[in-house]
Amino acid sequence: MIDALIDRIKALGSPIAVGLDTSFDYLPDALKKPCKSLLDAAKAITDFNFAVIDAVKDVVPAVKVQAAYYEMYGVAGLRAFADTLAEAKKRGLIVIADVKRNDIGSTAACYSAAYLGSVTVNGKSFTPFESDFITVNPYLGADGIRPFLDDCKKSDKGIFVLVKTSNPSSGQLQNRVLDDGKTLYRTVGALVGEWGADSVGRHGYSDVGAVVGATHKAEAQTLRAQMPRTFFLIPGYGAQGGSADDLAVCFNKDGLGGVVNSSRGIICAYKTDKFKDADFARAARLAALDMRSDITSALKRAAQDR
Amino acid sequence: MIDALIDRIKALGSPIAVGLDTSFDYLPDALKKPCKSLLDAAKAITDFNFAVIDAVKDVVPAVKVQAAYYEMYGVAGLRAFADTLAEAKKRGLIVIADVKRNDIGSTAACYSAAYLGSVTVNGKSFTPFESDFITVNPYLGADGIRPFLDDCKKSDKGIFVLVKTSNPSSGQLQNRVLDDGKTLYRTVGALVGEWGADSVGRHGYSDVGAVVGATHKAEAQTLRAQMPRTFFLIPGYGAQGGSADDLAVCFNKDGLGGVVNSSRGIICAYKTDKFKDADFARAARLAALDMRSDITSALKRAAQDR
Repeated sequence: MIDALIDRIKALGSPIAVGLDTSFDYLPDALKKPCKSLLDAAKAITDFNFAVIDAVKDVVPAVKVQAAYYEMYGVAGLRAFADTLAEAKKRGLIVIADVKRNDIGSTAACYSAAYLGSVTVNGKSFTPFESDFITVNPYLGADGIRPFLDDCKKSDKGIFVLVKTSNPSSGQLQNRVLDDGKTLYRTVGALVGEWGADSVGRHGYSDVGAVVGATHKAEAQTLRAQMPRTFFLIPGYGAQGGSADDLAVCFNKDGLGGVVNSSRGIICAYKTDKFKDADFARAARLAALDMRSDITSALKRAAQDR
Repeated sequence: MIDALIDRIKALGSPIAVGLDTSFDYLPDALKKPCKSLLDAAKAITDFNFAVIDAVKDVVPAVKVQAAYYEMYGVAGLRAFADTLAEAKKRGLIVIADVKRNDIGSTAACYSAAYLGSVTVNGKSFTPFESDFITVNPYLGADGIRPFLDDCKKSDKGIFVLVKTSNPSSGQLQNRVLDDGKTLYRTVGALVGEWGADSVGRHGYSDVGAVVGATHKAEAQTLRAQMPRTFFLIPGYGAQGGSADDLAVCFNKDGLGGVVNSSRGIICAYKTDKFKDADFARAARLAALDMRSDITSALKRAAQDR
């Protein structure tokens, strides 16, 4: 699946994912106003997402859909989540479900079935939240990851394992130094490299990727050097404070190596002065074009500096 | 909320949670046979859960409902999840949603709203998956935990943070030794102690608990000594191999300190020779009574050995 993502990134010249972290509060007043229930809110969020997907589908290769923003609106919210995943897929986008799931093996297999594999009811198979990639948390070690790896193989899917996250306190555990002198995030990075060693595609990257935040430049640089065949999902650009020049270290000399996510910076662009004359969908498109130009310029500068 | 759990444990003499990890495959043939869709499967699971809840409600204080087994059946599965949480609450059980959620602060706040706090749509508040406790993963550090702590305070709820999980490879990261000579699980344990220091209730335990597997006795013993005021959610008994004597080290001299979960051992008891003459709900009740007697005997033996 990593090959499909990289093909799209190359075709569009755009290593970008639009984050559909669509809080009800982010919606324009006209969409929000009539809503009285979770069902209403979920329908309004779905309408918003479909319009954004339509507006960005030829500018970015991928969307990252953050499950928490849908779980918050209950069963109706999860219907919006499933519909958003399916619509993005239908429109030709690569779909990353940002779920950060994790559990013991037998239970991780259930999560994997929901997103990557399939579940069977009396001989009929279903994949209720089908995604191309999901994010997973590594705290439980290899046997909690194995079911996802198996489904990636079987169904040509991918995962991004949390290695160094973008939040301010990510270092509290991830940057602790182990008794071999390596940090925890490097140790997790090494495991991710092992888990993905046998799924390297034709572009030289593995279906087992890593989440590496744009907000921690030094750590990203260390990981890039350590994990040449691991593709990075890079959150933290924009609203969280990571700049294009900061995150350029996540990329390899081939100009590849990462997909940068922006959520609020794109879906809330219509609220900014710069895009105030555009409707929310057109503002998202314009912001995605700006982001593409910002990132590709930074990557060119970084290439010249090498 | 920890006080309410401990009150129920004392009243029933039963430090036990029944795990509703209800795979469709676990259901009796009569329930399974007519199902053709995810919706059918979810309804059958709901019927099964309601019957088990009714059968064990005066034997155990709590149920632990594992989200993965519902997410697997899609939106219909999550309706079954919500209905199961609500039914257990209605029947007087303490409800632990085993979701192992985790994310950066702003996103963790969404998960917290779904389970512990509330979400607002034009002034109306909802808690779609209301639970008394949820499990959370600590890999992102303090700012990914803070929203859950805030909602615990506001809404009298609790969390169990993954410290030492029950799966075979949990040691791959959790048992790594840091440069101060302490393991990662002890380091997380110390953080959990800090996060819960200001929410200790009248029984001497905090609303911020820890997940400590029954399958790793030495680690559990270390953590019990280190964290006297932290209540443990103890998975791994039964099907995963942890014995009552192993997990007795999770308890304090006051006879308190943990709630032991069993899932397949209870909900699949009807498939065993011992209970083959009982229907699934009655078998679950009898297995829960057996488990209560097994655990309380082990705790008595442990108390005598002190």
